[in-house]
Amino acid sequence: MFNREIYIERRRQLRDQVSGGLILILGNSDSPMNYKDNTYHFRQDSNFLYFFGLDFQNLAGLIDVDSGEEMLFGDDFSMDDIIWMGPQESMQTKAARVGIKKALAYQKLFSQVGEAVKRGRKIHFTPPYRADNQLVLLELTGIAPSHQKAAASLELIQAIVSLRSVKDAGEIEELQKAAAAGYQMHVAAMKMAMPGTWEQKIAGTIEGISLANGNPPSFPIILSQNGETLHNHDHSNVLEKGRLLLVDAGAQTSMHYASDFTRTSPVGGQFSQQQREIYEIVLQANNLATELAKPGASYLSIHLEAAKVIASGMKALGLMKGDVDEAVQAGAHALFMPHGLGHMMGLDVHDMEDLGQIYVGYDEEIRPVSQFGTAALRLGRKLQPGFVITNEPGIYFIPALIDQWKSEKTNHEFINFDRLEAYRTFGGIRLEDDLLITETACELIGERIPITPEEVESTMK
Amino acid sequence: MFNREIYIERRRQLRDQVSGGLILILGNSDSPMNYKDNTYHFRQDSNFLYFFGLDFQNLAGLIDVDSGEEMLFGDDFSMDDIIWMGPQESMQTKAARVGIKKALAYQKLFSQVGEAVKRGRKIHFTPPYRADNQLVLLELTGIAPSHQKAAASLELIQAIVSLRSVKDAGEIEELQKAAAAGYQMHVAAMKMAMPGTWEQKIAGTIEGISLANGNPPSFPIILSQNGETLHNHDHSNVLEKGRLLLVDAGAQTSMHYASDFTRTSPVGGQFSQQQREIYEIVLQANNLATELAKPGASYLSIHLEAAKVIASGMKALGLMKGDVDEAVQAGAHALFMPHGLGHMMGLDVHDMEDLGQIYVGYDEEIRPVSQFGTAALRLGRKLQPGFVITNEPGIYFIPALIDQWKSEKTNHEFINFDRLEAYRTFGGIRLEDDLLITETACELIGERIPITPEEVESTMK
Repeated sequence: MFNREIYIERRRQLRDQVSGGLILILGNSDSPMNYKDNTYHFRQDSNFLYFFGLDFQNLAGLIDVDSGEEMLFGDDFSMDDIIWMGPQESMQTKAARVGIKKALAYQKLFSQVGEAVKRGRKIHFTPPYRADNQLVLLELTGIAPSHQKAAASLELIQAIVSLRSVKDAGEIEELQKAAAAGYQMHVAAMKMAMPGTWEQKIAGTIEGISLANGNPPSFPIILSQNGETLHNHDHSNVLEKGRLLLVDAGAQTSMHYASDFTRTSPVGGQFSQQQREIYEIVLQANNLATELAKPGASYLSIHLEAAKVIASGMKALGLMKGDVDEAVQAGAHALFMPHGLGHMMGLDVHDMEDLGQIYVGYDEEIRPVSQFGTAALRLGRKLQPGFVITNEPGIYFIPALIDQWKSEKTNHEFINFDRLEAYRTFGGIRLEDDLLITETACELIGERIPITPEEVESTMK
Repeated sequence: MFNREIYIERRRQLRDQVSGGLILILGNSDSPMNYKDNTYHFRQDSNFLYFFGLDFQNLAGLIDVDSGEEMLFGDDFSMDDIIWMGPQESMQTKAARVGIKKALAYQKLFSQVGEAVKRGRKIHFTPPYRADNQLVLLELTGIAPSHQKAAASLELIQAIVSLRSVKDAGEIEELQKAAAAGYQMHVAAMKMAMPGTWEQKIAGTIEGISLANGNPPSFPIILSQNGETLHNHDHSNVLEKGRLLLVDAGAQTSMHYASDFTRTSPVGGQFSQQQREIYEIVLQANNLATELAKPGASYLSIHLEAAKVIASGMKALGLMKGDVDEAVQAGAHALFMPHGLGHMMGLDVHDMEDLGQIYVGYDEEIRPVSQFGTAALRLGRKLQPGFVITNEPGIYFIPALIDQWKSEKTNHEFINFDRLEAYRTFGGIRLEDDLLITETACELIGERIPITPEEVESTMK
């Protein structure tokens, strides 16, 4: 937890940006696996962590914008709780740790909010993403779960985005710790990428590294020799010589700051000529994006520059054809990179995704693009100092998508479909780093994980 | 997945035990961590796994008891799903794998059930334990989440309990695999239990072992030098010489069968005299319970025999006094063992706990006991061949509970409170094995993890 002054100041700034009414921030509860008391690792809500700092179940925070009063709701432990879960600080003490004077029993939340609703006061809440909190919101506000997202407060969302988008020194330190754990995970995975190894064994081992560092990975590990599946959580294959192992994984620190890296290694330790050719294109796109990422540059424009590197490289290999700028304009590169260049990162690996991509990644100046591929870009807006983002270009050969485009003649003026036959079992390559935007440019967060073909091969020796 | 004939037969037996109407078994969905698309490891509902076998999100099974018709609801993958999550078999093929002919789109579930409700047919469902399934049930049946548990079908619950309580050969094989992974986890933890080691480092490492074997642990790992907290998920301490490390952990196989073992090791590798004295009592209780566990014996009676071993041992050390039988009758031993001797185990580590402990662990003959300590016994009924159960006696020194009993003079005729002062920082010891009830006795599942003080010390060398 940070110093209490940090939380007091964050809440003050939040109050300043919301015009009136009550700000309600619901903490998370335990999520059941296969019965109520068998729960997943507790993950606190990130907005709650940011403004109230307490990493415990069943809490809620309420800020009265008009009076400035701040309240924390939660229950003290009973003797039974102590026997099963150990002694805990009182709610009063926990509240004081984050600079809140008024701690109340959880049940009081219902009367406090209920009374405000009756008096017609505005209740600002964020879009709920867990069904249990939807049930709490239903009870608090009377709004049906299916309408809650639309009823969330735009004013509150925009205020939170403006605060959380810019990371302070303490947050950057946490992000560096997360990067260090991510480094360990990736190097371990590279060394294990040998023929005959079960993917799940590698995934489990590197998840263990993250856990031994303090917390589960920041997102479910993507790890597969079928790297052409963008979010492949199926780790059931046994690695085969001649394939590529794509690993997209990151850690969470004890304070829940994230890292998010992708590396792609040749199973067995040596890139083939075909693999190396594609790999170098992706690496070039990654390096260019890092070069271009600076305050004032829109990430949409950098995404498109990376797309041009890919289209140009694929053209040089004879897999694409025609004018590179026109091909990217038409979205032809998206056959090979059907996702965006990157996203915000912080307390969430896709930072603030619960609040809505449109508010986090876009603004009035830069609007989302609906074209296939670029439509999946989570961050398009102009970069600012203190933004933390990922840079993750990729090239994939997705048989089902290639077949669809080929049969529908999609962008056939830019694609040499016949040449793609030789790549049907290639898989995919993605190379991802985490960037901090500085006053004038950007810097990598953490030591760079081996990334050149030579570095990767040497790590695997 | 087992052979399709297994699932066909299980559903046939289930139909036979329910008098009429529709049996609805909802599968689970992904559970969000910090936003909707950042999800925990998917855990399918165990009843769904048992009767429908398919380990995928967003499915539901419906059995018409009267017509014998069986339906599976779920959606085929779109191109977007394939790009992000990989190609999958069609719903029709998945259904056929578990012997179901009729696969329908998920949305059809609502019309099918809705029509049956309109016609006044009984819809049998189990008590929901996830809020998202509560919302589905609300939409399907109109029953409010707060009333759904009470509205669950007793007939269905009892039918499921009668089937799932007795494990077949295939299930026992899976349980043995889970035990083998659990063995590895515990031996690794023992070897790491050295002064200066962060508890979380050990917990994360052994969780990684479970994951590398195929799945997350069967329950959140309990690991602490404060072993007196029964379900201690706080792994924030650094191990100190002279303390005991209690580890309660087990694995889940790829098919989600569980293991559940507890061992307690001396930090640094050598038991003190005081530790060894208490340890030997717990071990004696564990060994006696294994000896007594056989068909026809009630687990309540075995729990009480284990309690007598503890009371008798504590009396020999001068920590308890008076008549041992009377002390156990009065529940005085529960100051040291405030939990039950064990529980059913299978697809769930507390098997079928979602259905209700009263139906799983008790019957008309053996009813739950309300006395503190024994009230926490999850399994009291007579054992039958094929039951799989845990045997987990323990002795704990819980400062807050000791202080409460002392000040309230609870069972003061059986407790030497003054002598307990020397044990305030002792922590706790629990020793847990998994047992399969055979035709005449019981056998341990898996190779026994080192358990005698000598075995433990030698493992830690």
